[in-house]
Amino acid sequence: MTNIAFLGFGTVGRALHELLEQRREALRTRHGVEFTVTGIASRSRGWLANGMHTPDFHSWLNASAPHVLFESIALNPETGEPALDYSRAALERGTHVVSANKGPVVHGYRELSALAARRGCEYRFESAVMDGAPIFSLVERCMPLVDLTAIRGVFTSTATVVIEAIEQGSTLDDGIRHAQELGIAEADPSYDVDGWDSAVKLCALANVLMGCDLRPKDVDRVGIRALVADSIRAASRNGAPIRLVGEVQRTASGASAHVAPRSCSPNDPFGVVRGATLVTHFEADVFPGGLTVTSRDPDPQTTAYGMLSDFISVTRA
Amino acid sequence: MTNIAFLGFGTVGRALHELLEQRREALRTRHGVEFTVTGIASRSRGWLANGMHTPDFHSWLNASAPHVLFESIALNPETGEPALDYSRAALERGTHVVSANKGPVVHGYRELSALAARRGCEYRFESAVMDGAPIFSLVERCMPLVDLTAIRGVFTSTATVVIEAIEQGSTLDDGIRHAQELGIAEADPSYDVDGWDSAVKLCALANVLMGCDLRPKDVDRVGIRALVADSIRAASRNGAPIRLVGEVQRTASGASAHVAPRSCSPNDPFGVVRGATLVTHFEADVFPGGLTVTSRDPDPQTTAYGMLSDFISVTRA
Repeated sequence: MTNIAFLGFGTVGRALHELLEQRREALRTRHGVEFTVTGIASRSRGWLANGMHTPDFHSWLNASAPHVLFESIALNPETGEPALDYSRAALERGTHVVSANKGPVVHGYRELSALAARRGCEYRFESAVMDGAPIFSLVERCMPLVDLTAIRGVFTSTATVVIEAIEQGSTLDDGIRHAQELGIAEADPSYDVDGWDSAVKLCALANVLMGCDLRPKDVDRVGIRALVADSIRAASRNGAPIRLVGEVQRTASGASAHVAPRSCSPNDPFGVVRGATLVTHFEADVFPGGLTVTSRDPDPQTTAYGMLSDFISVTRA
Repeated sequence: MTNIAFLGFGTVGRALHELLEQRREALRTRHGVEFTVTGIASRSRGWLANGMHTPDFHSWLNASAPHVLFESIALNPETGEPALDYSRAALERGTHVVSANKGPVVHGYRELSALAARRGCEYRFESAVMDGAPIFSLVERCMPLVDLTAIRGVFTSTATVVIEAIEQGSTLDDGIRHAQELGIAEADPSYDVDGWDSAVKLCALANVLMGCDLRPKDVDRVGIRALVADSIRAASRNGAPIRLVGEVQRTASGASAHVAPRSCSPNDPFGVVRGATLVTHFEADVFPGGLTVTSRDPDPQTTAYGMLSDFISVTRA
């Protein structure tokens, strides 16, 4: 019996809980995994372990004694805290950590992976960058000995939705309000609009899959604020809409990374991006025109699914 | 030391040989795999085992005694022969089979997999459908407990290239000749143009990934011959070019499969398809808008890479 605990129980945590219950029987019969929820922690519920309130994270972790911790809390993207501290503490006691957060990946991937290896557990984060579409596991498990020369992508759906609103005649501010109404933009949209979100995700991919050691501040970053509405509309009319594209490329001296708005023709991995579509595009010698993974309209269930697939991985380990 | 043998040594076999030599050191240090080529069989070379001629397949197989057989021979798509017989014989003696051929997958997947399991070896075919882009391993390893409701794709680059030539003003026949000059169309192009190639690949995907038991004759099939040049050009001008799309969908009574030309808007997994691009699109409850894998301009090295990744899988097994 596997004890599981939810650190963060918002949209994603609840969707994961639902998905786990929905697949309970399949998990048992097809993967030999049975689970009990021993802990739920959220801002509104407090630190609940086996139904009882505990005073803080450490008491909660000890009382719920999870084999697997599902981490999906709000965090500071510039430091990865407090998710980084919590993950460290969980791994330290041998608890697998399955995270939907990119912050700790960017700021602590090497440390957390090394710690997990020392403690005989795993740190996994399939849902941290592409909302649950398999990209980390794709490279890790299906592309052995691949030598990635570049990764490109559209990682921030808010930017796309705002640009699309401008294409339709809105101002930037109206576009942002529209994205907020759809529930995809943060209360403070600058994180998405100024390209920070893309930069953080790009670093996570580069560090994990290309062995880089980039921080968001190393990414040459141009957001979408400076775009002129008329250019956005003209590009769209010409069939090559502007999208916010992130890119990391291997160079002689290491890697160069940038995030910037780019006009994308249909003959391009990003020309198809509409609404909440996310794309990661890999380049390598064996894929002359690149290999692209596109996830259309992912929702919280998709993010939950990425965590479920991580859950199956760690229980198999 | 792993003995390997090449059954078929055309463009793909030679590209694989080159890739294996190129990655020899990495295979050793990163996967603990060392290999010797003990057999090469091709129409022009005959049955070479350890540099000596042998009279036929069975003598060759016994003399080269491979641990892994790389199969990439020409075959009859309607029966999968002779690749099916050869694969059966190899698996029977406990030799892993890594195939780039879709025929045996369609006609013998269940039998060959069951045989491999009984003999403690593996039958793998990552390159059989998408020229080496990871799709079978993606679902198998990165999408646990996924319940695929549909698979769609553009599987036949010849059809795209012919349609594109017509878009540019060619006739169907000129388009076919152009594809033949590019080396992507068969001497007998009807297999591609009439949708058989797409139907065979669709069956391979459906049978392996959706548990179907379809044969190409079960696929409702319309090729591109009946298309009117003017409609092709109009669709392209309107930004929604016609592509040959294959689709299998789960139904209450099993599955329905069809291949037909379809107008694809940019807001569509296939709207981006140009030239040799191949696309496989998966639908499942956890991916509301589907998950798409796109491989642009794969070449023989890509197909070889799919076989290399299968090679690493079977040596690990």
